[in-house]
Amino acid sequence: MTKPKPLFHTLLLILPIIALFPSSPESRRLPFLGKHSLLHKPTNNIINSNYTYEIRYFQQTLDHFSFDDRPKFPQRYLINTDHWAGPSRMGPIFLYCGNEGDIEWFAVNSGFVWELAPSFGALVIFPEHRYYGESMPYGSRDEAYKNASTLAHLTAEQALADYAVLITDLKRNLSAEASPVILFGGSYGGMLAAWMRLKYPHIAIGALAASAPILQFEDIVPLETFYNIVSNDFRRESTSCFDTIKKSWAVITSVGQKVNGLDHLAETFHLCGKLKSTYDLSNWLDSAYSYLAMVDYPYPSDFLMPLPAYPIKEVCKEIDRSADGTNVLDQIFKGVSVYYNYTGEADCFDLDDDPHGMSGWDWQACTEMVMPMSSDKNSSMFPEWAYNYTSYAEECFNNFGVKPRPTWITTEFGGHDYKSVLKTFGSNIIFSNGLLDPWSGGSVLENISDSVVALVTEEGAHHLDLRAATADDPDWLVAQRASEVKLIKGWIDDYYTTKKSVFNM
Amino acid sequence: MTKPKPLFHTLLLILPIIALFPSSPESRRLPFLGKHSLLHKPTNNIINSNYTYEIRYFQQTLDHFSFDDRPKFPQRYLINTDHWAGPSRMGPIFLYCGNEGDIEWFAVNSGFVWELAPSFGALVIFPEHRYYGESMPYGSRDEAYKNASTLAHLTAEQALADYAVLITDLKRNLSAEASPVILFGGSYGGMLAAWMRLKYPHIAIGALAASAPILQFEDIVPLETFYNIVSNDFRRESTSCFDTIKKSWAVITSVGQKVNGLDHLAETFHLCGKLKSTYDLSNWLDSAYSYLAMVDYPYPSDFLMPLPAYPIKEVCKEIDRSADGTNVLDQIFKGVSVYYNYTGEADCFDLDDDPHGMSGWDWQACTEMVMPMSSDKNSSMFPEWAYNYTSYAEECFNNFGVKPRPTWITTEFGGHDYKSVLKTFGSNIIFSNGLLDPWSGGSVLENISDSVVALVTEEGAHHLDLRAATADDPDWLVAQRASEVKLIKGWIDDYYTTKKSVFNM
Repeated sequence: MTKPKPLFHTLLLILPIIALFPSSPESRRLPFLGKHSLLHKPTNNIINSNYTYEIRYFQQTLDHFSFDDRPKFPQRYLINTDHWAGPSRMGPIFLYCGNEGDIEWFAVNSGFVWELAPSFGALVIFPEHRYYGESMPYGSRDEAYKNASTLAHLTAEQALADYAVLITDLKRNLSAEASPVILFGGSYGGMLAAWMRLKYPHIAIGALAASAPILQFEDIVPLETFYNIVSNDFRRESTSCFDTIKKSWAVITSVGQKVNGLDHLAETFHLCGKLKSTYDLSNWLDSAYSYLAMVDYPYPSDFLMPLPAYPIKEVCKEIDRSADGTNVLDQIFKGVSVYYNYTGEADCFDLDDDPHGMSGWDWQACTEMVMPMSSDKNSSMFPEWAYNYTSYAEECFNNFGVKPRPTWITTEFGGHDYKSVLKTFGSNIIFSNGLLDPWSGGSVLENISDSVVALVTEEGAHHLDLRAATADDPDWLVAQRASEVKLIKGWIDDYYTTKKSVFNM
Repeated sequence: MTKPKPLFHTLLLILPIIALFPSSPESRRLPFLGKHSLLHKPTNNIINSNYTYEIRYFQQTLDHFSFDDRPKFPQRYLINTDHWAGPSRMGPIFLYCGNEGDIEWFAVNSGFVWELAPSFGALVIFPEHRYYGESMPYGSRDEAYKNASTLAHLTAEQALADYAVLITDLKRNLSAEASPVILFGGSYGGMLAAWMRLKYPHIAIGALAASAPILQFEDIVPLETFYNIVSNDFRRESTSCFDTIKKSWAVITSVGQKVNGLDHLAETFHLCGKLKSTYDLSNWLDSAYSYLAMVDYPYPSDFLMPLPAYPIKEVCKEIDRSADGTNVLDQIFKGVSVYYNYTGEADCFDLDDDPHGMSGWDWQACTEMVMPMSSDKNSSMFPEWAYNYTSYAEECFNNFGVKPRPTWITTEFGGHDYKSVLKTFGSNIIFSNGLLDPWSGGSVLENISDSVVALVTEEGAHHLDLRAATADDPDWLVAQRASEVKLIKGWIDDYYTTKKSVFNM
């Protein structure tokens, strides 16, 4: 029996993983590689057959902003018109902004959109992000990911233009030019939804941007924010758990330096193969803690891994339960086993199981999506680490032959002085966040105006609100979703009113 | 003594010129060539030494939206900080969005911006549009205009991103991040100003878009609009003038078909060389009428050519004065001589005097800026002509090896349903237009909301309001500029108020 593996993961998390362990040779070689990511399609047990859709392909322009002669590529999208009120009644269109992965996986994990559609009489469409899933330029993933020149057009602006072109064409074909479009998105997809609302107000009248860290650029938020939130998620469950994790890094380093130390560590952590460096192990543990913070959901879930409700509480229980002051590593192993082996099916763990080499998000992080992160000695349970752009850029150049443009995202989409800008010139955006989610620190957490609204839940984690309703949903989650529905309904009502008044102008 | 020539012309007008005479072999060869355009720098008599500026160059990214490895290029910009209130007082920045030509020419013809700066304590910056003037990628104009691949990045979106990157960098260097930016622009530059305001609200708080035909795409306005306005400008001065021009086309064709007919025409119109086809002559006449409509200013001017006040009135006087019912061609010659030879210095005229081959606007018209135009048999004084996209696209492909994207501009910037969109999601844009200007038909002529405002003057022509004040300015022009100043002042005041309230949030 092989080890279980995360079905997928939100690649946004890749960056912090390396940021913390940059000095190992591995990190220099593959600074942003999502070692634990799988780009496979979801397995059957995840696909909820309640969401039915047709799969279609659109011949998409590769470069919207220049006229270099490049081949079009087939952009995949999922569409469901079952509940649509149709063009004559200006039935709305719900568009999920596909993010960095297979669009079917996002579709099945965004039950909220599907559940909302019938009552709104909405058409549902999930377009896939270019260079992910099946939406590959140049005929195949191998060709698309060949080098910096073929990857050149994997950018957020091109992806937004894809959605704009696709939905414009679709609406024209359906004679549905007057149907209002509502955007949805989580994580990077939430960033795309918010940005699309700002950049294409003629195409979409509102956006639900769930867990969208649009401020995680340059110095807009403190660089320590992400790891501080992860750390606080553990500390709130148990101070001793936090302390144990905090001191474990030094123990790992120390043990690893001893004779046969790496073998001892491999044995302690039930690794399938040899451990090549303590970096690999630390990286693996960092992943677990960070992902746990993202998916610290109030009920059992299997978004990234099969997990119990409030999994950090369970991890800390395990760590604290076996505390006797001497075997820190055993404690840590028992803790992370909740994450990596909740079903108990794994006999051993493989730290290096990504067969894909370069991932798309690595490229994006090395070009536009430069999200600086540090770890603070005092407030974090992780090792101290200060962000260094120079070495970041060097590693990007070594890996991809590309130079990042670290200030481009805020130039193109804004970010600095966002309160003034959104208050005065933005409208119809919901920024939803759960404060357990480490990405929440890079999002908008205050109401900006009547129509740029922050819905914040103390106990929520990474875009929990986009998931399907369950019988275990706590009241605050039910209330959050109800607020979202009410706001979206308001946008659509306003739209119909404006249409009417302009018609009479 | 050589013939006088138009110092420059607004390339936006190139399209209609050919649209009307598509069947000649010349038109098939050079469908959009601006035969009468000069890309030279303005001569000294035009430069008003009251506008002083420093000339600087910014190393600009060629492709903002992909990471293809391309060389940066030096973007020229003019800057004046003499009257700036400075960063500590959040002194405003006036940014003119350079359009399709040498930026110094636009600077000297946009006196309004310079005259406004002192009272606003504003810094003034005129960045040049890529691929025009001195702002050439690949080292030189010849290299930049070599082929479709080198021209590929001559697009409006890239130009807007240039301005965004440049101003962001400049503000950072001046520690002036908090200074509000006001955009100005006329004609295509006005379109850029309006679009930049919509797309980059975090960068500019408002835009004066003078004579900006942002609706001259697809079928948003009737295709006959442009030529109908030109025609009406002549009819309002004199019905007989209109009638004479209307019947002259057939006379030209008929004479041209006779033995020695082309020689006869060349003699009648005082051409310096041989006339190769009646198309060339008709094109030359069409240019005169269309430009006259654009610059039908209420006082003597030398924007395109040295001209008297209300030049169409003078043209029609000449045409009507010599009317005896027989010599239509003589009448026409005397009329257009007002345009081509007002100073009386020309002994003969050269119809084909553009040494530049491809112009940048031709490329833009063959890629994004597809502005369909027709001429209506009944309402126009021009020959009947129905727009045909298929042949348009064919000629573009023949000339540049490029396929137009005729629906891209409205997808990227909007246009359809613009009243709803601007009313709900736009703010702080002035669309100023004079109804004599044939481009006014493709602009926004109604107030959309309190802050998206149309300032329309019955007697105004092409972005007259951007020109320097003169002693001859009629009251309505003085009033129009006063309204603009009041609105701009309101935007800046609102900005300071918002900054204050957000600061206290």
